[in-house]
Amino acid sequence: MGALHDGHLSLIREARKENDTIIVSIFINPLQFGENEDFNRYPRPFKNDCLLLSQENADILFCPNREEIYPVSFCTSVTLKKLEDKLCGKSRPGHFSAVATIVLKLFNILKPDIVYFGQKDFQQTVIIKKMVSDLNVDTKIKVLPIVRDKDGLALSSRNAYLGNDERKDALCLFKALTKAKHMINSGITLNREIINAMKSVINDYKSAKVDYISIVDQNNLEDTENAKSGDVIALAVKIGNTRLIDNYIIPFFVFIFYSFTSFLIY
Amino acid sequence: MGALHDGHLSLIREARKENDTIIVSIFINPLQFGENEDFNRYPRPFKNDCLLLSQENADILFCPNREEIYPVSFCTSVTLKKLEDKLCGKSRPGHFSAVATIVLKLFNILKPDIVYFGQKDFQQTVIIKKMVSDLNVDTKIKVLPIVRDKDGLALSSRNAYLGNDERKDALCLFKALTKAKHMINSGITLNREIINAMKSVINDYKSAKVDYISIVDQNNLEDTENAKSGDVIALAVKIGNTRLIDNYIIPFFVFIFYSFTSFLIY
Repeated sequence: MGALHDGHLSLIREARKENDTIIVSIFINPLQFGENEDFNRYPRPFKNDCLLLSQENADILFCPNREEIYPVSFCTSVTLKKLEDKLCGKSRPGHFSAVATIVLKLFNILKPDIVYFGQKDFQQTVIIKKMVSDLNVDTKIKVLPIVRDKDGLALSSRNAYLGNDERKDALCLFKALTKAKHMINSGITLNREIINAMKSVINDYKSAKVDYISIVDQNNLEDTENAKSGDVIALAVKIGNTRLIDNYIIPFFVFIFYSFTSFLIY
Repeated sequence: MGALHDGHLSLIREARKENDTIIVSIFINPLQFGENEDFNRYPRPFKNDCLLLSQENADILFCPNREEIYPVSFCTSVTLKKLEDKLCGKSRPGHFSAVATIVLKLFNILKPDIVYFGQKDFQQTVIIKKMVSDLNVDTKIKVLPIVRDKDGLALSSRNAYLGNDERKDALCLFKALTKAKHMINSGITLNREIINAMKSVINDYKSAKVDYISIVDQNNLEDTENAKSGDVIALAVKIGNTRLIDNYIIPFFVFIFYSFTSFLIY
């Protein structure tokens, strides 16, 4: 959707390593914004995006207009029943169906061999991987790690909305995930306990309001009772009027390490 | 869906004229059958189908099994809001979404340059053309005329369900369409009048029960008030337990001719 930051550029750099031709699409998809969401004020620094893309040696920029993508009689949509109502889908009904539909259109127009997505939009990556598999789309999906500011805030085009105080409060997402990580590393696996501790972290920040905090299986996005390797801790928090998301995939070594120490103890 | 008849074979023959390689798919798609529909008893004369295909010089037969097409976690579907609730969609909820989904999967697996469909399933052809256009699928759709038995009954795999008396009554669909055609040729264009006359024709047959008779715009499937060139007269009739469909696209010359005679009279 443009307003490119280092997270986006990391995708281009990785793609540059393993492909001959890099196509970047920029399309602020109106259908994936809810009525009260930020479609109109979403940042559109188009000239600067072009500059960044030429610095990164992207080969093609694809930025169609709305009428080309959605002619008047457009009426087709792709839905993923079990996945799109979960996590962010709860407060953004229709969002992921609109994302799946535009992404499938872009895949069909551009016919990429490999497509690169950032892990920050975790649910989006799960849904797109599932759509590609369910609809037999001949495209490989790669998901690259979240890129963060020095203090830990996940990069997002929406960070531009934050005032100075809000920018400080926005760190609560990363702080809450770090808290969860430490708890898990110390052997706590009861999700209820972890989620409550994360809520406490966030509630210490004035402008922050939790939308959701969930620990889910990374394939079906169902809540799990006990955190295990491969599960994802995902959260959405409103900082003032700005809704931010972040997540953490519990790595494998944590539990291997923990199992090993348990073995020593018993 | 197999149970091949001359309607299917006409598609293969046309494809044979203009392509190097012909792939035929046979897959009785469970998801497009309603709960009380005929999935279990749908005819499956697989050996005879293979024989017919080799006689027609088809190159590849693609007949995947259910688990390959729909793995346990399958959850994606394609929907076409304004088109799928109309005509047959009214009495077959979910049917056209399931059709669009399987057809898109087959397109993505087989990557055909041109795909051939029969006009008998008229709504299906409209929905597939719209899906292809809306989702930017790089496949050309060709729709070929309905193939009929000598007496006029449109060929259908479901004709195999008909008993002797039912087979006679099944002709009512063609008779009703012929009645409509004659009315239009004689200058009657009020759809209400045409539809009522068609209903009378069908009600003369004992085992026949009208599901719907509609005259619609061929692109958006909306009912029209007055029949015009390019509109489609579509109907579904139950003959005993067997639901049959048929249709007639009002050709262009009819109205050119009629306008001309009107011009002479006034």
